[in-house]
Amino acid sequence: MKTTRAQNYVIALLAVIAFATPAARAADPLASWNQGPAKQSIVAFVEKVTKPGSPDFVPVPERIATFDNDGTLWAEQPMYVQVYFVVDRVKALAPQHPKWKDREPFASVLRGDMKGALAGGERGLMEMVMATHTGMTTAEFERIVKDWIATAKHPGTGRLYTQMVYQPMLELLGYLRANGFKTFIVSGGGIEFMRPWTERVYGIPPEQVVGSSVKTQFELRDGQPVLVRLPALNFVDDNAGKPVGINQHIGRRPIAAFGNSDGDLQMLEWTAAGSGARLCLYVHHDDAAREWAYDRKSQVGRLDKGLDEAKAKGWTVVSMKDDWKTVFPAVK
Amino acid sequence: MKTTRAQNYVIALLAVIAFATPAARAADPLASWNQGPAKQSIVAFVEKVTKPGSPDFVPVPERIATFDNDGTLWAEQPMYVQVYFVVDRVKALAPQHPKWKDREPFASVLRGDMKGALAGGERGLMEMVMATHTGMTTAEFERIVKDWIATAKHPGTGRLYTQMVYQPMLELLGYLRANGFKTFIVSGGGIEFMRPWTERVYGIPPEQVVGSSVKTQFELRDGQPVLVRLPALNFVDDNAGKPVGINQHIGRRPIAAFGNSDGDLQMLEWTAAGSGARLCLYVHHDDAAREWAYDRKSQVGRLDKGLDEAKAKGWTVVSMKDDWKTVFPAVK
Repeated sequence: MKTTRAQNYVIALLAVIAFATPAARAADPLASWNQGPAKQSIVAFVEKVTKPGSPDFVPVPERIATFDNDGTLWAEQPMYVQVYFVVDRVKALAPQHPKWKDREPFASVLRGDMKGALAGGERGLMEMVMATHTGMTTAEFERIVKDWIATAKHPGTGRLYTQMVYQPMLELLGYLRANGFKTFIVSGGGIEFMRPWTERVYGIPPEQVVGSSVKTQFELRDGQPVLVRLPALNFVDDNAGKPVGINQHIGRRPIAAFGNSDGDLQMLEWTAAGSGARLCLYVHHDDAAREWAYDRKSQVGRLDKGLDEAKAKGWTVVSMKDDWKTVFPAVK
Repeated sequence: MKTTRAQNYVIALLAVIAFATPAARAADPLASWNQGPAKQSIVAFVEKVTKPGSPDFVPVPERIATFDNDGTLWAEQPMYVQVYFVVDRVKALAPQHPKWKDREPFASVLRGDMKGALAGGERGLMEMVMATHTGMTTAEFERIVKDWIATAKHPGTGRLYTQMVYQPMLELLGYLRANGFKTFIVSGGGIEFMRPWTERVYGIPPEQVVGSSVKTQFELRDGQPVLVRLPALNFVDDNAGKPVGINQHIGRRPIAAFGNSDGDLQMLEWTAAGSGARLCLYVHHDDAAREWAYDRKSQVGRLDKGLDEAKAKGWTVVSMKDDWKTVFPAVK
């Protein structure tokens, strides 16, 4: 039989798959997860929603999974990564703002006094966010984030922040996608702070990132259209804002949701309230040796109410200490 | 050789593709488009951005295409479909609002006087939108839209509104998707008015619909989480709002954009301003015999500035009369 180019292509594909499949099957897609109830609950959930004919079967378009970012996909201690970004931006912009050295919280940041800088609470932090995150175009801000994230390192570990991601969660993202899930980030962090690197680091494209945002405005500058970032909050994607953000961006209820703090509780509640099989999972930071141990009393990523509700409702609680073989990926 | 189940599956797949491919090739994916400059510009664009090695090649994740809805994917004359929905909802809810019969614009609607109902302009219309689109949960509103769209018919043609979609545009959506594009709706219409049916009618899932919205609020009702639709505008996705909505939801610039009115102009400008190959296309309603003919002076879907800019910039302008073999799909 004379073969067409399309047929040749398929034959080549066949050869690749035929040899690749047994190996792919043998490898555990969740290799960094220890055997135990957490891993078991994940695999059992995925198997039942993907098995045709199963009473829990969910069609591919409805396989929506949402992930918090800070503390769920990457580390958030001793401070949220975006706060380090704010601090670095305040320092970089200080020469253009001579009055900052006499004005809190900027003055503390410039003296290197982080405790003093955060003493102003959320209001002081928001003032620094607005001063560093707005007034430029969206393209300019994207460039700033890309340049910063390419080299900025965690003060404790010396790793790039993008190497402070959790290896077991990277595997979980891949496992879900291999099973037809669409994976989204739903984070209290800035949507435009995440989008420049989530595709490279997590395999999550910009259109699947939900986060907090400032208002933007369309303008023509010398005939060129730009979007300008304005110093006004548009949306806070945290706590009760997470289901709102999910509805606004995704328009359907997730069947699986992953978080680590009380800020994720409403997202998990919203997910759990749908009909059919659901997976609600909390990452519990209980590994002081390899990461950090914190929950009910932490200022960053507090998990208190959520831990009670997870226990009451039988949600999956991952012990980083017991359930994860490794925490961070090997650094190349 | 003993074959595994995976290999058997691939062999079956091979057989299907081997026989299906020549036929699929022979069929024109844009069969309802007449040969001409519009069709040519579409095909030439898709071929150059998808051809590996071409200087205009665009990787699959960046193949973002945005479509206006009213007047671009479905008819908008003599009034936007959502206005008919508002009218029907006012009638349905009138028994619960006895005062409406003495209050404009409700009174005119209830008398069947559409001209009087719209005399109050945007403000009067917005009052009716808020009265009919808010105060319920998102799930309740979805049900209302689904029930309405399943049976509501166009007053002029007697077709279901979902049969007032443009066959050539359905083919264009499919052609782009077959070439690795992700297709989005970016409409001034209500995001939650579109999502319940866009997947079925256009193959566009809820997470790829951008539109205008009201604010929503997360609440626990008898322990059950719900999102309540509030009588407050959240976002108007029209004119300069379209690039803002695109940035907020998609987070990257489209390489192709499709509209029919001045309300789409900024979306087309935003799309055109990116580097690399771009396709900006206006559907021009010039077919009074098969659809409607209107442009510079129309109250609904005015195309005036946009038509000038399209000519000045060499964007594609589709003549419904000359470029489309058929307008609406055959009704089964």
